[in-house]
Amino acid sequence: MSPRRKKIYEGKAKILYEGPEPGTLVQYFKDDATAFNAQKKATIEGKGVLNNRLCEFFMNGLTNVGIPNHFIRRLNMREQLIRQVEIIPLEVIVRNFAAGSIAKRLGMEEGTALPRPIVEYSYKNDALGDPLVPEEYIVAFGWANQQDLDDIVSLALRVNDFLAGVFFGVGIKLVDFKIEIGRVWDGDFMRLIVADEISPDSCRLWDMKTGAHLDKDVFRRDLGSLTDAYTEVAKRLGVLPTNPEPMKPTLIN
Amino acid sequence: MSPRRKKIYEGKAKILYEGPEPGTLVQYFKDDATAFNAQKKATIEGKGVLNNRLCEFFMNGLTNVGIPNHFIRRLNMREQLIRQVEIIPLEVIVRNFAAGSIAKRLGMEEGTALPRPIVEYSYKNDALGDPLVPEEYIVAFGWANQQDLDDIVSLALRVNDFLAGVFFGVGIKLVDFKIEIGRVWDGDFMRLIVADEISPDSCRLWDMKTGAHLDKDVFRRDLGSLTDAYTEVAKRLGVLPTNPEPMKPTLIN
Ligand SMILES: Nc1ncnc2c1ncn2[C@@H]1O[C@H](COP(=O)(O)OP(=O)(O)O)[C@@H](O)[C@H]1O
Ligand SMILES: Nc1ncnc2c1ncn2[C@@H]1O[C@H](COP(=O)(O)OP(=O)(O)O)[C@@H](O)[C@H]1O
Ligand SMILES: [Mg+2]
Ligand SMILES: [Mg+2]
Repeated sequence: MSPRRKKIYEGKAKILYEGPEPGTLVQYFKDDATAFNAQKKATIEGKGVLNNRLCEFFMNGLTNVGIPNHFIRRLNMREQLIRQVEIIPLEVIVRNFAAGSIAKRLGMEEGTALPRPIVEYSYKNDALGDPLVPEEYIVAFGWANQQDLDDIVSLALRVNDFLAGVFFGVGIKLVDFKIEIGRVWDGDFMRLIVADEISPDSCRLWDMKTGAHLDKDVFRRDLGSLTDAYTEVAKRLGVLPTNPEPMKPTLIN
Repeated sequence: MSPRRKKIYEGKAKILYEGPEPGTLVQYFKDDATAFNAQKKATIEGKGVLNNRLCEFFMNGLTNVGIPNHFIRRLNMREQLIRQVEIIPLEVIVRNFAAGSIAKRLGMEEGTALPRPIVEYSYKNDALGDPLVPEEYIVAFGWANQQDLDDIVSLALRVNDFLAGVFFGVGIKLVDFKIEIGRVWDGDFMRLIVADEISPDSCRLWDMKTGAHLDKDVFRRDLGSLTDAYTEVAKRLGVLPTNPEPMKPTLIN
């Protein structure tokens, strides 16, 4: 990346830079992994490269089925060009099977099939630990209105159908995932689109045969090598970065 | 109470006995106080008598304004006759000002006015600590359907308007309260009605001038005498049990 480029925001896993045109940003994928509200941290070599590739793959897939999202194109190993949005400060979580916080909250065994996909929201706020919030809070505090929430649920369920299909095809169970949603304006007309990232950092993915975790729980729960897990996902989907762009021009012959 | 009466359920604050007619129960108010999911316990002499009276007062008030509820009539110092319902396993909480769990969850100062009354739900389950649950969970697990929830919100907001008025009239701010809702059947036709209790055990009540707590927080936070606080509420509302029924017939003259 060019040193002259202006940094807009540095988060836990990614950095946003000013994009080449107004209304665009460059999203850079770091190798940093965090969990439990950043109480657990590590640098995992290659994670950023894998996630950038996988995110490209999923976002292009969404575009193909007509689910609007911020992705424009991948720029290089770690960067992608995205449309700038006004992020709604929510983590939109879709669950197909109980795992993580819902299992704990309701005393369910992890892996229990939910009676139907459940969409829930956490308020994106590190200081508060991204707490679960009812729709009532969201509307009362003006983070989104009821119409927004209806649109968000529709988007989230469409993403769920698509991703469940993608993973089903390669023997992986989509247990749950998290997306972020942003606002874009076409003149006065506001639309909601999928933003941020879709990657094994933001999904729970279980191997259908072995039950092995192929997602960030490998890091959260110390289950082995995170890059091995993400590489396995990338391999199955045929998106391994086998052909990295050379960093410098290579003289051939 | 008659020793022959069958005990149906003993909870943390009340006991339910079989009623004199089918479809009725007798609700007995104990002096037991519990907080923090029953980790803190005490017996507070007179609390049950005060709550039985205050509950009678509020439920009769609801009936007067046409808000359906389970209360039939008070039987004696500690007991009231109620209509048996099928309890929906939710605590329905209405908040006008931030206090307790919402203040903590969202990092707000206690007493901050909310932009509008907020209705939220906890799953009534002591083992899980009555966790906050989104409407999505409620519908997905079949504890209530969307129509039920719409009806519950309407009931809860009506109760809020009525109770806010009652307390406003005697210089008390209704910060928040909790109700339970039950199902009753008239033939095939199911209706939802207010059940359980309304009392200073289930409300947050702040004196408008001094900010003094006149509710169970006095017990939760060790702020003084709980009966003094509840007696103050009862006095202001003119419902002090000043004229207890004599336990034995009294010969006059
Ligand atoms: N298209 C977009 N426009 C503006 N902001 C975005 C867009 N997509 C994602 N973001 C935001 O950029 C940040 C991405 O970096 P990340 O490391 O995930 O941050 P965080 O630690 O806040 O989650 C997030 O705060 C996310 O909300
Ligand atoms: N009309 C009613 N019919 C049946 N059950 C009721 C009715 N009103 C309240 N209840 C239930 O009776 C119990 C009252 O006792 P309580 O001490 O509050 O119990 P808990 O410790 O379960 O909250 C509660 O479980 C409540 O849900
Ligand atoms: Mg993030
Ligand atoms: Mg109770």
